[in-house]
Amino acid sequence: MNENLIDFDGFFKQLETKAGEIWDEILASSRLVQAVENGTINKALYAIYMIETYHYTSHNARNQVLVGTRSGCSAPYTKFCYQHASEEVGHEKMALHDLASMGLAGIKDESVVLPHPLLETESLIAYLYWISLTGNPLQRLGYSYWAESCYSYINPVIGKLRSTLGLEDSQLTFFVAHSDIDTEHFEDVKNIIRRTCKTQDDLNSIAYAMEATLGLTAKMLDAVYVDYENFMVGKSTRCSFLSQMVG
Amino acid sequence: MNENLIDFDGFFKQLETKAGEIWDEILASSRLVQAVENGTINKALYAIYMIETYHYTSHNARNQVLVGTRSGCSAPYTKFCYQHASEEVGHEKMALHDLASMGLAGIKDESVVLPHPLLETESLIAYLYWISLTGNPLQRLGYSYWAESCYSYINPVIGKLRSTLGLEDSQLTFFVAHSDIDTEHFEDVKNIIRRTCKTQDDLNSIAYAMEATLGLTAKMLDAVYVDYENFMVGKSTRCSFLSQMVG
Amino acid sequence: MNENLIDFDGFFKQLETKAGEIWDEILASSRLVQAVENGTINKALYAIYMIETYHYTSHNARNQVLVGTRSGCSAPYTKFCYQHASEEVGHEKMALHDLASMGLAGIKDESVVLPHPLLETESLIAYLYWISLTGNPLQRLGYSYWAESCYSYINPVIGKLRSTLGLEDSQLTFFVAHSDIDTEHFEDVKNIIRRTCKTQDDLNSIAYAMEATLGLTAKMLDAVYVDYENFMVGKSTRCSFLSQMVG
Amino acid sequence: MNENLIDFDGFFKQLETKAGEIWDEILASSRLVQAVENGTINKALYAIYMIETYHYTSHNARNQVLVGTRSGCSAPYTKFCYQHASEEVGHEKMALHDLASMGLAGIKDESVVLPHPLLETESLIAYLYWISLTGNPLQRLGYSYWAESCYSYINPVIGKLRSTLGLEDSQLTFFVAHSDIDTEHFEDVKNIIRRTCKTQDDLNSIAYAMEATLGLTAKMLDAVYVDYENFMVGKSTRCSFLSQMVG
Repeated sequence: MNENLIDFDGFFKQLETKAGEIWDEILASSRLVQAVENGTINKALYAIYMIETYHYTSHNARNQVLVGTRSGCSAPYTKFCYQHASEEVGHEKMALHDLASMGLAGIKDESVVLPHPLLETESLIAYLYWISLTGNPLQRLGYSYWAESCYSYINPVIGKLRSTLGLEDSQLTFFVAHSDIDTEHFEDVKNIIRRTCKTQDDLNSIAYAMEATLGLTAKMLDAVYVDYENFMVGKSTRCSFLSQMVG
Repeated sequence: MNENLIDFDGFFKQLETKAGEIWDEILASSRLVQAVENGTINKALYAIYMIETYHYTSHNARNQVLVGTRSGCSAPYTKFCYQHASEEVGHEKMALHDLASMGLAGIKDESVVLPHPLLETESLIAYLYWISLTGNPLQRLGYSYWAESCYSYINPVIGKLRSTLGLEDSQLTFFVAHSDIDTEHFEDVKNIIRRTCKTQDDLNSIAYAMEATLGLTAKMLDAVYVDYENFMVGKSTRCSFLSQMVG
Repeated sequence: MNENLIDFDGFFKQLETKAGEIWDEILASSRLVQAVENGTINKALYAIYMIETYHYTSHNARNQVLVGTRSGCSAPYTKFCYQHASEEVGHEKMALHDLASMGLAGIKDESVVLPHPLLETESLIAYLYWISLTGNPLQRLGYSYWAESCYSYINPVIGKLRSTLGLEDSQLTFFVAHSDIDTEHFEDVKNIIRRTCKTQDDLNSIAYAMEATLGLTAKMLDAVYVDYENFMVGKSTRCSFLSQMVG
Repeated sequence: MNENLIDFDGFFKQLETKAGEIWDEILASSRLVQAVENGTINKALYAIYMIETYHYTSHNARNQVLVGTRSGCSAPYTKFCYQHASEEVGHEKMALHDLASMGLAGIKDESVVLPHPLLETESLIAYLYWISLTGNPLQRLGYSYWAESCYSYINPVIGKLRSTLGLEDSQLTFFVAHSDIDTEHFEDVKNIIRRTCKTQDDLNSIAYAMEATLGLTAKMLDAVYVDYENFMVGKSTRCSFLSQMVG
């Protein structure tokens, strides 16, 4: 396959269609999303979700630069990895800030120790390292592809969440900041795909990783809800420090 | 917690009870196991299972030695990791041999390229590297604990599989060899736990990893069956080289 | 030691004094530098030097991002590592370009395979990975400190080299580009030291690594000259493709 | 080159000749060896040497198993790496024991913190990781080759050391144990070379690594003596806890 002959517009359309299908399914069937939509979400459920968000986010810059340390990486792709990672360093702290802003004061002064991630969150994290360190180095772009363009799907959910929980923008820094950064990042992702993908295997690897990582994220969302249910009926002590939130 | 005060017998009993519960659930609900039990398994289904077995097995020695390279590892535990890993090197080739023995000649001369692992298999592999390289180094013993003692649960299934497919012991080398090795290895696993675990966190980490990795293995078994169904109705070309097996 | 109480100006002065002493010794005793100073350097000697420069430079961005993947790194220092590394990606290609510009056409079309690095160059590379992946993560700043500020010492040498070999600026892209970038980078290095160093051990680790890596670089320069001597008397075939350069 | 056509006996002869030449030079010119030969060695000098021995030895099993985790490694070579590493785990503790036996009680109860390795020792350690993790995986056998067969060269030196310092075998466990283990290990090294080397590059890589690592070891021996001199004239406080030894 000649680089000039790759139909990148067609490839992006195909990625967007697939991502759209998976998001439609998530939005329709995820109990976490439903709890937002029907206004039954409370701060404890949102907090459990943000704790998991904190966990996987704290690895994203790290696994992205690791891609660039591999021997098969072109200079432009390596530069892209390092540059984007540098712009995402420390973003997990926004998740902590948003948690603290809801009254979890102990988060900031570290008197509260965050619980270990859920198994599904660890599976997502472990898989992101796995695809960063093995296989086609370009495949991690499949994760970036959906992660940097998910706001058209999730912004309405965040809007509903904000009104239900009565949150200010200053309490939603994680989502607000990413929504801004990611528009530009998404263009960068498409540009680096155009510039560095040369073979059908490159495209297939990106498409596969997009679907796989979005699927693992959906499983994480489901696990958040299960953990919340267990918390509410007293079956899980993992997040017992949240009980102050559910009066 | 003083080392002498840890009730290791009680801990092993607790692990065995938990492993037993999960195995009971797997044996009762896994469609792959049911296909063996009711005699409907065919060589293609078994082959798909053995391909995934090949994939995860080819990483086990490697992730086990990586545990021992970490700075927090005691000398006896490091020695255990290297020693056991040295005894498992190349065992994935038994899975290949068993596949080839069923008439998949291309496996041995490499004219058949094995398909990429299923996502659930990759998730298991990625998680095993994750727990080997991060967290409490002793936690990987939770994987060894059930993996080296699973034969009481799976031997009846293997017996039924053998008679249904008309296989010889020489075509089941992966299971026969491991069944032999693992009796001794299981004693080693218990001994190294007794010798090196000092804290409640050590025990909890082992128990958690046992449950997590056995759960991921159950998901892999389920994915094998789904892939088989897709193969049979022509929805998956992943294993199309197996069509010679289903006359 | 309180952060506010660290005398960073004094620390930088101490680093500069030490770096100055080592540079003075290199400039006085290095046979490679002497060959430049007394006008006896030829293109083959310069080419051997640039080949080694290519080798170690091709690892610098990589080992710098690896620092940032370690768990003990603060967000600002991690961001610094990724950001600076992104600006140095692919700079080894300038060394190749400069080699090619001297008539080594085979370098660019890859019909010439570059020789393996000298042992002293490999030792420098290996040590940079070593200090990036183990010990105090801040210590790699000791390498950046001298590497980003070496131009006051080496610019006169490069000027003499240029006139002796009759090179244009377009044939000295490696040095010209770095000389420009590094002025800003050096300020960044001092700023990140001020911002992230908290203890005497941090300062000591940086000072030690500066001295160690500058010393290993001096050994590499000496090895370049020995290799050149061996090449000239026909004792080394390592760089025999350079014989076209020495009429 | 066909495997059957490789003249392994000739290759081993060539390695032994080269190792012999380097050892002859070390034995003739090393000031540490001379201090043993002429009976001027004291416990402080020997202790400084054993501290460095402790440092590099504590990495040997680790870098050896890392070779086996690389994708290009054959099963027999991987098994060899894991097996041998398992037999060397914790051997650095023999160096500590021998140090303690000379009256450095603080070593064992950890009231004495060992000094950081000398730069030359770190360079050896870093290079061993480097050749274990990059380049031809077989090359680390060049290190094993001389390390497992060095006793014909160093046993006379150890004998003289023992009598000069009046040490018992129980105070020389590091050397006595290795001398025993290594005879068998050396045969294993030759066998695995015969079994797994297939190309001239394999042989060249082994020969190069042997020479390189023996050369770095010689530099470490020289640095030990320099450090001892600095200690004796009070210029180095690195090993000041040894002053009790030189009454």
